[in-house]
Amino acid sequence: MQTLSIRGGRVLRPDMSVAEADVLVDREAGEILAVGPTLGGDETLDASDGLVIPGLVNAHTHVAMTLLRGHADDKPLDRWLREDIWPVEAALEPEDIEAGAELGVLEMIRSGTTGFADMYFEIDRTADVVERAGLRAVLGHGAISAGKDDEAARADIEESVEMARRFDGAAGGRISTAVMPHSLTTVTPELLELAATEAADAGVPVHYHANETVDEVEPIVEERGARPLEWARDLGLCGSEDFFAHGVHLDDAEIELLAETGTGVVHCPASNMKLASGMAPIQRLLDAGVAVGLGTDGAASNNDLDLFDEMRDAAMLGKLAADDASAVAAPDAVRMATAGGAAVLGLDAGRIEAGAAADFAVVDLDAPHLTPRHDPVSHLAYAARGSDVRHTVCDGDVLMRDREVLTLDEAAVMERATDRARALLERAGA
Amino acid sequence: MQTLSIRGGRVLRPDMSVAEADVLVDREAGEILAVGPTLGGDETLDASDGLVIPGLVNAHTHVAMTLLRGHADDKPLDRWLREDIWPVEAALEPEDIEAGAELGVLEMIRSGTTGFADMYFEIDRTADVVERAGLRAVLGHGAISAGKDDEAARADIEESVEMARRFDGAAGGRISTAVMPHSLTTVTPELLELAATEAADAGVPVHYHANETVDEVEPIVEERGARPLEWARDLGLCGSEDFFAHGVHLDDAEIELLAETGTGVVHCPASNMKLASGMAPIQRLLDAGVAVGLGTDGAASNNDLDLFDEMRDAAMLGKLAADDASAVAAPDAVRMATAGGAAVLGLDAGRIEAGAAADFAVVDLDAPHLTPRHDPVSHLAYAARGSDVRHTVCDGDVLMRDREVLTLDEAAVMERATDRARALLERAGA
Ligand SMILES: [Zn+2]
Ligand SMILES: [Zn+2]
Repeated sequence: MQTLSIRGGRVLRPDMSVAEADVLVDREAGEILAVGPTLGGDETLDASDGLVIPGLVNAHTHVAMTLLRGHADDKPLDRWLREDIWPVEAALEPEDIEAGAELGVLEMIRSGTTGFADMYFEIDRTADVVERAGLRAVLGHGAISAGKDDEAARADIEESVEMARRFDGAAGGRISTAVMPHSLTTVTPELLELAATEAADAGVPVHYHANETVDEVEPIVEERGARPLEWARDLGLCGSEDFFAHGVHLDDAEIELLAETGTGVVHCPASNMKLASGMAPIQRLLDAGVAVGLGTDGAASNNDLDLFDEMRDAAMLGKLAADDASAVAAPDAVRMATAGGAAVLGLDAGRIEAGAAADFAVVDLDAPHLTPRHDPVSHLAYAARGSDVRHTVCDGDVLMRDREVLTLDEAAVMERATDRARALLERAGA
Repeated sequence: MQTLSIRGGRVLRPDMSVAEADVLVDREAGEILAVGPTLGGDETLDASDGLVIPGLVNAHTHVAMTLLRGHADDKPLDRWLREDIWPVEAALEPEDIEAGAELGVLEMIRSGTTGFADMYFEIDRTADVVERAGLRAVLGHGAISAGKDDEAARADIEESVEMARRFDGAAGGRISTAVMPHSLTTVTPELLELAATEAADAGVPVHYHANETVDEVEPIVEERGARPLEWARDLGLCGSEDFFAHGVHLDDAEIELLAETGTGVVHCPASNMKLASGMAPIQRLLDAGVAVGLGTDGAASNNDLDLFDEMRDAAMLGKLAADDASAVAAPDAVRMATAGGAAVLGLDAGRIEAGAAADFAVVDLDAPHLTPRHDPVSHLAYAARGSDVRHTVCDGDVLMRDREVLTLDEAAVMERATDRARALLERAGA
């Protein structure tokens, strides 16, 4: 057995307490063997002045959209999609997806993220990047009916199912999949139902967007006579493995439904603010026992993929939404970004303890903005940022050591993404 | 004449456009001499792959509160003040102020801030730190009537006036001052009026907190029959040099009053979210032509002093407040953090052009999270963070070069702050 030992630091435990401890990892099994005092190993990582935290989970993104970071900001959602995003997405080539996914994955590794859920296109390219880069992902082809004839829309859902079947378990099990109809309003009811049936048949979850804006909720209420998630449940989209992004506009009955069915919610606070979508009722979701993770959404509406920002935003915005400064406390934010996201994505990770997946990051606490250290959990939520991550480990492999990413060539990734982004915008006439 | 040349990068111009240019500085005058192609100098700073931006201005903070960073989070404002902040502040010793100010100033220099306004106690200690550290500050003694008898409350305002007179123009002109009555509700009307009169007499502005929470607005409306800022104007607190923090809850008449009188508003979005105070109507203030800067407020309600967070928060929260994704666009956020803050504090800085103060930062754009570079201004507002700052220059002096702070001993500052913070909490029984 090959072991890796993380030495000399403190560890964030599942109950959000912090203790001095080393972490011993079985590299081949990709599993944590022990957490305790002075554990030797074949290889060591220095965690002195550091805090070992579960690898962050970005539970909803569109990773290749890093190519559009800063391309078009500060526009209303519908105009932004019609004028800036969709025309460019229509011009995307498989090489763009690969270049954008490499850039996004590089950024995530550098900021301590070890797992993510991605809804996009050409997922074979993203799967290849995930395989090489060494982190964990739930991948899915985003299928959309809007703008397509019946046949093309059906073929799109079928492709989502086909991709979910093909890549589930890829990269030595680091990749799992979901069937991903884009949203409750951009996919026809028949195809939403088909997605649910086929996902169940394939043994994978369904992932979609829901209740993001008021404009998305009202038409469903009018047409269906039910709240969107009541309707989604009737279509078969609210199983205990299923998860959706946003949930900004939810009523009490929907919150209860989510808790009862075990449907996961991915809170994307930065995206919700940047697109002026609203404030999700996170404290109410947590109180009801709903499984909540955090997501960056695409880089075009964020504009980075740093989960430390999402922890801070979730804690901050959650207080405003609840009109209560004690809502969404620091440990809640950290839990959503780690164990919460892992639970939503069905990963056996998100906690530093024996038997869990060896997915973690070491945060360097030796910095002015993290001084003094009254409460490291507060620092994680409110003061730390991705650049404070010293090492990132996933599945027992060191992906970043002392801020050097070992699995990707950083300069080459940035150069390629820059070139592809420039050519893409030219091609799209944007 | 000794010159400093910033070579090989791009420059953010006052109109928010970006151009390739060098910057030449007269070190003795502390002034920008020229912005243009290939400018040599006695000393050079490398700006390749970088963007030269005006030094950020933190227009409202309580800098020594860095000692309380993470001490008590996630509590309602009144309980937080009564249980956690005031008891500790009562135990503060001058050495604590100095240690906390050093830590905060170190953090600000490391994140590209070159000027700040500070309301706190023992300001001779903060002035000493500012003198040594090399940045610019508007300092003031925060005077409060609540909990004091008439005599003591009056003495407190007199101390604020005395300190403002004593330190105005200190540190070779890098320090200016203001008379700082704490807020419209925590200082008696008589003493607010006295503060205004004495400040006018001393030729310095008045700085205070106003309209932060609903609980602060309502009693004034009931007792005075006027909105808080109408009442403040009648007391003499709304001159063209005066500025106040927050302005979360403002009506149209108050916004117009602020524009007409030229009173500056310091928006503190992170603090307003963390304390669940509400969303300031920033787009409406900008539309009305009000002078708006950004502030971190104290580290205990933030929890860092990184103005990049405030730019992002201002852009994000401003959209939610306006229910419009096009509100508070990236250039607006950057402008508030630079020229806006400088105008509010009366500094001849906040712009990279000949004749302005040589206060600037060089942001390193060569990073995955800042790739591709479609729009550097978007990156400043949405994706960059303090750790991306490569050099910080103030008054023609290099305060940080290649992320090494030259004017403070970083390790010693962190160690001292850690020790003082620990002893302070013990002394306060917290
Ligand atoms: Zn999305
Ligand atoms: Zn304040």
